[in-house]
Amino acid sequence: MKPTATMRAETKYLWFNTKTRREYIRITDQIAAFISECGLQDGMLLASAMHITAGVYINDWEEGLIQDIDAWLERLAPVNPHYKHHNTGEDNGDAHLKRLLINHQVIVPITDGKLDLGPWEQIFYAEFDGKREKRVILKALGM
Amino acid sequence: MKPTATMRAETKYLWFNTKTRREYIRITDQIAAFISECGLQDGMLLASAMHITAGVYINDWEEGLIQDIDAWLERLAPVNPHYKHHNTGEDNGDAHLKRLLINHQVIVPITDGKLDLGPWEQIFYAEFDGKREKRVILKALGM
Amino acid sequence: MKPTATMRAETKYLWFNTKTRREYIRITDQIAAFISECGLQDGMLLASAMHITAGVYINDWEEGLIQDIDAWLERLAPVNPHYKHHNTGEDNGDAHLKRLLINHQVIVPITDGKLDLGPWEQIFYAEFDGKREKRVILKALGM
Repeated sequence: MKPTATMRAETKYLWFNTKTRREYIRITDQIAAFISECGLQDGMLLASAMHITAGVYINDWEEGLIQDIDAWLERLAPVNPHYKHHNTGEDNGDAHLKRLLINHQVIVPITDGKLDLGPWEQIFYAEFDGKREKRVILKALGM
Repeated sequence: MKPTATMRAETKYLWFNTKTRREYIRITDQIAAFISECGLQDGMLLASAMHITAGVYINDWEEGLIQDIDAWLERLAPVNPHYKHHNTGEDNGDAHLKRLLINHQVIVPITDGKLDLGPWEQIFYAEFDGKREKRVILKALGM
Repeated sequence: MKPTATMRAETKYLWFNTKTRREYIRITDQIAAFISECGLQDGMLLASAMHITAGVYINDWEEGLIQDIDAWLERLAPVNPHYKHHNTGEDNGDAHLKRLLINHQVIVPITDGKLDLGPWEQIFYAEFDGKREKRVILKALGM
């Protein structure tokens, strides 16, 4: 059992405003910097998209794969004018489904003052209905 | 760095017994009330479906979209008499897959004594094989 | 409100090296043993696959359903020689997508010194590109 320090919670918001409607943005470095600033040594970090047409996921930082992921999301949750949601005047039904498919949040463990990620794990913000201001919340809990 | 209070954990179980087999029930208010009762000011809240044919997700509180989500889940994880799982006498193979697709849990950050949700984020219980008693666990960790 | 003990974090890594490329391994008992060793009474446990072609999920421990899940993942995220990711020399594009579909992590609540799982919830490691050493991180936070 390790010596205990005082547990605490730390919060930060990341803002995004993409130029295109769909975009995949690597945010690992911003999250690592937040943990360094906090000085947390051990715990968990939540990164969660606060808008319901965007997500957060962990996978490879490789351009071909990112294109594969985008094509796959479009195949399983396609742009389609006939969603019932569009009766409200919206046109982003596909973006809601894409967020559900890729998920909107990840928990990253913190060990020895750093994000405890596997060798190829990178954290991404996935925008499915962009060109406007959106937020991701970072909430760290630990000591 | 904020002044530190004592960290603690709080637990509650929500019960459901739906009238129909598939149903989507908004549970944001019940979860917000739990956080108020606890008096936690900062931390994380886990909401997790304890039965393997139900899920918890965060998305829009809009009837058309809820119908779109249901139709989408049925398209990707359809009712089908031929699942191998049905050799056990069960008939709910699709419900297991729908839970995997929508996911069975969310973490909600708590800030300033409240659920720190985006403007349109609402928490839903998703029932895929209802008409019997089922539970969601709420576990809050914070101070 | 319960009497408070001191919050702490505990970490363990589980190693896997499967004989086949795709495999589903029940890890509930190993995780329960970790919580017993830690002596944590209340809190949360993160189990997260550290390699981006593997996942962790919670569902039924029933061989027919496991076969259904595998067939379903293959239907929605199929082996396919034409992924753009394969231009890098890799051949595991499907494995990256299968991990995104099933998700790579779960949070398990801890109550009264035990994993607080529903009656049929079992935790699985899902390998999609095996026959090599891979890790799952366990991170528990609580008291």
